[in-house]
Order: sequence, then structure tokens, then C-alpha cells
Amino acid sequence: METAQDLAENYSKAFNGRIGFGRRPVLLSIDFVLAYTTPGAALFAQGVVDAVAASVPLYAAARAAGVPLVYTQVIYDAEGRNGGAFVAKVPLLKSMTSDNPLTHIVPELPPAAADTILVKQYPSAFFGTNLAAMLVWMGVDTLILTGCSTSGCVRATAVDGCSHGFRVIVPEECVGDRHAAPHQANLFDIQSKYGDVVSRQEVLDYFAALKP
Amino acid sequence: METAQDLAENYSKAFNGRIGFGRRPVLLSIDFVLAYTTPGAALFAQGVVDAVAASVPLYAAARAAGVPLVYTQVIYDAEGRNGGAFVAKVPLLKSMTSDNPLTHIVPELPPAAADTILVKQYPSAFFGTNLAAMLVWMGVDTLILTGCSTSGCVRATAVDGCSHGFRVIVPEECVGDRHAAPHQANLFDIQSKYGDVVSRQEVLDYFAALKP
Amino acid sequence: METAQDLAENYSKAFNGRIGFGRRPVLLSIDFVLAYTTPGAALFAQGVVDAVAASVPLYAAARAAGVPLVYTQVIYDAEGRNGGAFVAKVPLLKSMTSDNPLTHIVPELPPAAADTILVKQYPSAFFGTNLAAMLVWMGVDTLILTGCSTSGCVRATAVDGCSHGFRVIVPEECVGDRHAAPHQANLFDIQSKYGDVVSRQEVLDYFAALKP
Amino acid sequence: METAQDLAENYSKAFNGRIGFGRRPVLLSIDFVLAYTTPGAALFAQGVVDAVAASVPLYAAARAAGVPLVYTQVIYDAEGRNGGAFVAKVPLLKSMTSDNPLTHIVPELPPAAADTILVKQYPSAFFGTNLAAMLVWMGVDTLILTGCSTSGCVRATAVDGCSHGFRVIVPEECVGDRHAAPHQANLFDIQSKYGDVVSRQEVLDYFAALKP
Repeated sequence: METAQDLAENYSKAFNGRIGFGRRPVLLSIDFVLAYTTPGAALFAQGVVDAVAASVPLYAAARAAGVPLVYTQVIYDAEGRNGGAFVAKVPLLKSMTSDNPLTHIVPELPPAAADTILVKQYPSAFFGTNLAAMLVWMGVDTLILTGCSTSGCVRATAVDGCSHGFRVIVPEECVGDRHAAPHQANLFDIQSKYGDVVSRQEVLDYFAALKP
Repeated sequence: METAQDLAENYSKAFNGRIGFGRRPVLLSIDFVLAYTTPGAALFAQGVVDAVAASVPLYAAARAAGVPLVYTQVIYDAEGRNGGAFVAKVPLLKSMTSDNPLTHIVPELPPAAADTILVKQYPSAFFGTNLAAMLVWMGVDTLILTGCSTSGCVRATAVDGCSHGFRVIVPEECVGDRHAAPHQANLFDIQSKYGDVVSRQEVLDYFAALKP
Repeated sequence: METAQDLAENYSKAFNGRIGFGRRPVLLSIDFVLAYTTPGAALFAQGVVDAVAASVPLYAAARAAGVPLVYTQVIYDAEGRNGGAFVAKVPLLKSMTSDNPLTHIVPELPPAAADTILVKQYPSAFFGTNLAAMLVWMGVDTLILTGCSTSGCVRATAVDGCSHGFRVIVPEECVGDRHAAPHQANLFDIQSKYGDVVSRQEVLDYFAALKP
Repeated sequence: METAQDLAENYSKAFNGRIGFGRRPVLLSIDFVLAYTTPGAALFAQGVVDAVAASVPLYAAARAAGVPLVYTQVIYDAEGRNGGAFVAKVPLLKSMTSDNPLTHIVPELPPAAADTILVKQYPSAFFGTNLAAMLVWMGVDTLILTGCSTSGCVRATAVDGCSHGFRVIVPEECVGDRHAAPHQANLFDIQSKYGDVVSRQEVLDYFAALKP
């Protein structure tokens, strides 16, 4: 498409860097919960269903390589008070309370006992959570970012991950959105400015090389 | 455009909220510096030139209404060390050192003595700065967001502003980007999920109503 | 005591300010949990038992005046991983898992349905939580700080509360420690530099004056 | 002293851990500025003068071992607005503006070109600064904490350093306060709960062992 080529040319004049992989990665699973994969649910997104399927072999490879996994899920209190301005802007989120099964992590990507699950209320997995402190203590330098939605929590976590000093890597098949346009637009922004958008295969190769 | 209509319909099923104006606004001026408005500079963007021009009457109205102004500019140390992973990803930023006149605020929107100027190194005006603490102490509840770029620091500040508990309002003529596609895509995301994208006139009316 | 007088004179030359009450307070209940009030428990502290008793009428007055209450409790995951360096330094904390009844809030100060309960892992109630965002959204400007321990989580929350832009007020009967020396030393530091240490009666009078 | 022994016994029942040195340290120099070492200045403290002197060989050893140094200094804008509630509580701080020579770093410990200098406005060197992001990007895991005052910015930085996931080490000769009581009380709290208070010699030995 003409616009896309023009855009790529325009941005590549200023933004064409690559951050690269580090040595101690963590695999982040952002909000892969039933709300996005249950047909008929208000947040349902086919793009997320596809991203979940694409993530299955990636998570398996991470476990095989000893890469730690950190999952997030979104849960609000009954009045959505701990969601503050975000819930006021997106009232739909108020339904994501602890007794709503749509907040559960998808069964295709079950957390293991050794994994960490963080509950968050805001777009970035770093906001209002201990994620940064945990990653520092673990000595992590690289975030492999999977989950949803590309234009929401994945984007926000990519920006914050970069700001906090980590190498952000997004295997593009493993993130999803409810529509292709914001999905592509946000991958473009992330790749331009905050982290490297790569193929899943590239991350699989990286994990394989980590093995002892 | 068909895609645009489809996108709007898709997103409006889940995201159609309005946060609304509060009672104690601040006008935020994000990175309106010469690097974006000087023809030939690597970061030059006509969209930013236009946004600066559109902001002149808005800033005047804010001052007339007694709305406080907070400016940000981006400055790195000589090695870009205080830019961490962000400068590693976008090496061009390394040139934005204190002795580079491109870091200066544009002359069309000169800060007054009573205004605050924050130096930042990361996309969000909240990251690594005292902005939130200052706004809390001032009793601010609403952020009027102007500046550049729409897909970079404006977007990141909108997400963080919402997360921190403020009402985020973006007068769309007063933010700019180097290309129309990410400009529009990020306005769409902000309007969907983080704040209200409104016309400049709407903010002018709001300011006028604040006057005693 | 000579040293105490000397200390007071010394510090009062530089630090004698008063921050004062604001208009929209919140009552913060920091870690008033069974671990500190159960005889025989490793963290048991008579000073905390006394602070709980002193807090009963204060909490009742807050409710009567419509002041919102926010409780915190400390809970770690099974491996203490979300406690990072803090749990590594204080291994005892590792026992504070969700299935340990010592993590429960004391029965003398039961949370009501309208109250908020935050789970935290670090000394400050602000660290790794949404507390600041919630307070901003609520329009709060004043923190009435109760809980334990004075030298630990109360002190850390006082410093962070001040840094975040809030007026910190500590009714001294309502905070406690396992030993009088750090209790007094930390009240001295808070009063000198971060907030006002006042009598419980002063806060009761303030709450009474808030009533419509 | 009886009280001191009683206190030590009491606290050691719950808090006796040691965090230990990591592998990638940074030397932090907190607010070693002329305000604390100039006789007659309101913030003058003999304890800080002594800590500066004790720090000279430590800084030299850090440089010899290739340990990076990060300095902080405190500077407020003309109205102290960027100091928020902290300056409201401690009005004296308002005098620490950029044109006040008392804000300068002490000549005994001159920063080198390769060192980083952070300007901060709040007690903790982490609050409202990029310190954590910089340390993450540098791969640091250990903070050697020097500076002043022990009961103010050193204490606050120790608590935040621990919370952010770093190993906090305080060589006790290299931190100072305006009075011995809060100096000792805060070293006690830090050693009990947030980091290891050790002798300068222990850090010198650690630095020596780092050399290639």
C-alpha cells in the first residue's frame, strides 16, 4: 500500500534502531484471559484467539529453556475504585471482578507452579504492580512480550518496559487485537521506538540458544 | 473509508466512554521544541509545526483563565546514559544534549515566569519526573494535553495520565506527528481508551467557563 | 532527658514546619494484621496492640464523618518472589502467605463493604500498588496515617505520602512498634521532615469539623 | 546502654538477615553538597563533614575498581513548586535553588566526567528521577550508599533501593547526620530491615576483590 510505504520511509529516517536480545529474559503473558477469547463476550477478539494459539509453542520453549514466565490478569474491586480514571473512561472494565470467570487465564496457556501471576488494573503491567522490582531482583534484562491487546496493554507495557531499562521484544504472532488496524499501527510504533517486533521463530531460536 | 468505518464500529462496541472535564485543569505542553519544527532537522514534522500554530490561542486562553502551564523538554547527558534503553533503541535521541539548540522550546509558545518546565528523558512526561507529585500538590484533576509527537510522548503521557488518576483531554489540533497515519491511529487509541479527544474549540469554551 | 532536649533544639533550627490538614482526607490503616497482635507470634508487638485499641474510636469517627478508609495487608506468594530484596533481607516475611491467618486484619478494626483493601509487599503502601492513582481519582489531599510498624511501613508510607504530594498526618497513639526506641525515633523524623505528628484528639476534632 | 541492648535483643528476634553483596555495584553519593558542610549554614552538620572525609578513599577505590558513581544533588525551582508537599513541610529547602552555591557538590568528592549527576527534589534518590531505569540498563544489582543525611535522604533511598530490588549496603562511616541520635536510629532501622550496615573496610575489600 502506498501509504504504508510512505510511512515506513518517513519513519525510517529517524527511527530504525534495534535494541537486540539480552542475556536474561523473562516471558511476559499480558492479559491472555477468557474475556478476549470467549465468543460473544464484549471484549472477544479473533486476533487474540490466534495469538493464544501461536503462543502455545513459545511458552513451551520458554519452559524448556528455563526462562521464567510472568502472567498478568486484570481484576477490579466491586465498585471499580481501584481502576480509577481508567474504569471511568472504559466502564465495561467494571465487569472484570474476581467472581467473573472471564478474568481467568486461558486454558491453552496454563500457568505452572513456578510461574508468577500478577493482578493489575491499568494498561501497563508495570503500573501499580511490583513487576519492575521483581525483574530487578531476578536480574532480568529482556522482556519477551506476548498477550493482548496490541493497542492497549501490550503497547503500554512495551513503552514502560523500555522506559524502565529493559530490552523489549515482541514476537508479532503472539500478540493480538480486536481489529487489524490498531494491531498493525501499534506494532509499527513499538518497532519504531520502544522495542523490536520480530517473528516468533526468532524468539524460538533465541530460547534454543539459551539452553545449557 | 471502509476500514475506518469498520474499525469505529468494532471498537465502539466495547469502548465508547467519555471521561469529561474536571474542575482544576493544567495545560501540558509536551516537547514542543525546535527539533520538531526546524526544517531539515531529523525530527522535523510539518504536523508539529501546525500543532504549534494551533496551540498559540489555546495557551493564551489558558493564561487568561488562570490555568497553570507545565512544559516538558527532552535533554540527555553527553553519553545518553540517562536515556537508558530508550536511547539505545532510538540512537538519534543522543544528540539532544543541553548544548543543542534543537532542545529549546519553540519561540511561538514561550514559557512565562510562573510556568513550570520539566526536563524528561522518556516518552511519558510522568516517567522519571516529579510531574504526578506536583499535580497532586496543586490539586489538579484534569490534563489538557498538547505537544508532540502524537504517537510518541503524547500517547505515552495520555496513558500514564489516565493511569495516575487524571482526566486526560486532547484538543486534536494541538498535537502533531511526522506522519498522518500514526497521528490518527494514536488519537483513535487515546479516544477509545485513555482520554477524550476533542476539538480545540471545546477546550477554549471550557477555559472560558472557568473564568471568575 | 538531656539528649532528647539537645536533639530537639538541634533539629528545630532547621526543621520546624507544619504541613496542616487539607480538605479531603483519607484514613489509611497500614498493616494492622494479626501477626502483630497475636501473643507468641514472631512479629508480636505490644505497641501495636495499644495502637489498635487507640484506633477504634478514630475509625468510628472517620466513618461517621464520611472519610474513606483504605486498609493495607501484606501477603507474599509461596516463594516470596514478589517480595524481592525485602524478603531476602527479612526472611521471616516469607511466612506471610495468603493461607496464613496472621495476615488477616485485626477483628477490632473490621473493614466495611465500602472500604478499600490493598495488598502490598513492600514497606510503603505506595510501592507497587495503585494507592496514589486511587487517591488522585478520589481527589484526596490528606493522609491520616495509622497502623504499624512505626519504624517500618508507617515511616515508609509517610515519606512516600509526602513525596507524592499529600499532607501526611500521624495521630501518635494510633501507630505502634515492637520497641519504644524506634517508635519515638521515627515519630521524631516524621514530625521533623515529612508530616505532622499530632494527638488523636486533634484528628477527632478535624473529623468532627468535616461533618455536614 | 541497657536500652540499646534491650532493643537489639528485641529486634534480633525478628530481623537479623543479611542481604549480602551482589556482583555489579554502583556507588551512590547522596546529597553531599556544601549546604551540609559549610559552617554557619542552616543545614550544617559535623557528622556530614566527617562522612565526606571518610568517603574520599572509598570513592577512590570505587574508581580504581571500575565501579560506576552516581551523585545526587537537590535543587528546586524559584517557587519550590517542584518540591510540592516536602518543601511545604520543610520551608528551608526553598533556598536550594540553582543559583545557590550551597547546592554544589563538595570539592572533596569531585564528580569525574564519566560519573552521572542526578538532580532530585525528594528524599529518595529514586523518587521523581530516572535512577531505577538507569541502574536496570546498567545491569546493577548492588547499591553502595553514601551521603547525607542518614535520617533523611539516605534512609529514604535505602528503603526505596530495597523495594526496587537492589542489594543495599551502607558503609557506616560514609553517611552523616546533624545529630547522633537519628543517625544511630536510622542505621539501626536500615540494618534491621532494608540493607546491610557495614564498615567502610568491608566495602573496600569488596571493591578490591572486583578488580580484574
